[in-house]
Amino acid sequence: MVGMTSTAADAPRSPGRPRSVRADEAIIDAVLDLLADGQTMEALSIEAIAARAGVGKATIYRRWPGKDALLRDALRTLKGAPPVPAGHSVREDLITLLSSVGSGNRDARAMKIMPCLVPEVHRSPEQHRLYEEMIEPRRQVMREVLRRGIDAGELRADLDVDVCMMMTGPMLMQKLLRWRPDIDERELAERVVTAVWGGMATGPARP
Amino acid sequence: MVGMTSTAADAPRSPGRPRSVRADEAIIDAVLDLLADGQTMEALSIEAIAARAGVGKATIYRRWPGKDALLRDALRTLKGAPPVPAGHSVREDLITLLSSVGSGNRDARAMKIMPCLVPEVHRSPEQHRLYEEMIEPRRQVMREVLRRGIDAGELRADLDVDVCMMMTGPMLMQKLLRWRPDIDERELAERVVTAVWGGMATGPARP
Repeated sequence: MVGMTSTAADAPRSPGRPRSVRADEAIIDAVLDLLADGQTMEALSIEAIAARAGVGKATIYRRWPGKDALLRDALRTLKGAPPVPAGHSVREDLITLLSSVGSGNRDARAMKIMPCLVPEVHRSPEQHRLYEEMIEPRRQVMREVLRRGIDAGELRADLDVDVCMMMTGPMLMQKLLRWRPDIDERELAERVVTAVWGGMATGPARP
Repeated sequence: MVGMTSTAADAPRSPGRPRSVRADEAIIDAVLDLLADGQTMEALSIEAIAARAGVGKATIYRRWPGKDALLRDALRTLKGAPPVPAGHSVREDLITLLSSVGSGNRDARAMKIMPCLVPEVHRSPEQHRLYEEMIEPRRQVMREVLRRGIDAGELRADLDVDVCMMMTGPMLMQKLLRWRPDIDERELAERVVTAVWGGMATGPARP
């Protein structure tokens, strides 16, 4: 099942763009509006999406084979493209990636939708897969930065890459659970990277 | 507003315990059943709780001043008492605490209720406060272990305690978002502590 978001998400917003692109955008927008209004992914129907987007069901089915493919594209549009790290310093790149957790996009609906995805993930393997597909591009960027650091000799050769990728955990706690409302995201990202960079044990000074 | 969970939660389950304790337990159970069935904290009514528990509303109001106090006690009962670390090694204690994130209790309803609390936390400052009160006893245990490590000279004196407490983040990602279904919790806890203990930067070997 291949969706078609890229046309909707990447198209420049110009009044002259084709009618089909505008329909794609309206459909994706309708999905995100309904999710932000508290609809669950499970309960969401093609009928409701069509009504909200002001198109016929056939228009949706011409573009997406089914609800899952449409949801996948809508969630990817919501997340936006993964951040592109500057590539100068591994440490700075990690801070950039961590700062962008849950705030990489400017869509106000994201803060309503993302926390609601947590219970959804537990509902079925399909919902879990949709979530995984949404975040995999970001995981990939993080993995590459860590591997670059190892190759450059900045990070230890025996680095537990899989676990270090979970440095995003504190950022998610902050976004999803408002863990420390008194610390802003950029500061938290710096402090997380600093803590993990230098380690907890007594010994060498931090960089 | 002071709740009364301790009587319900701490009482040994014996057929001879007083009727009032059994009523407390039935009421707390009813709250947790309703939450596990998908009721939101906001929508939960004293009427529905009373009906499910098989008691009158007056019985509930004699024990709790209102819904918030009852919810607080129900969530604390669900979480159970925070784990008591053995106190021999800071490293082992941290692994124990991390392993217990989201799995410190044996109540099957927890895995249904906890993910659903994430959107709730965003609903109002009151809901957020209920969440904070539920987890604060656990935060306190973690804070004490880290401070003990600093005092003993095992952990660096300039440790960022607030941020290191967020090592629970990867564990929560695992529980709430099934981040790495292929890694079990004890193994993940050990790997997180090892990664943060020794740091990422090239340099000294890990302990």
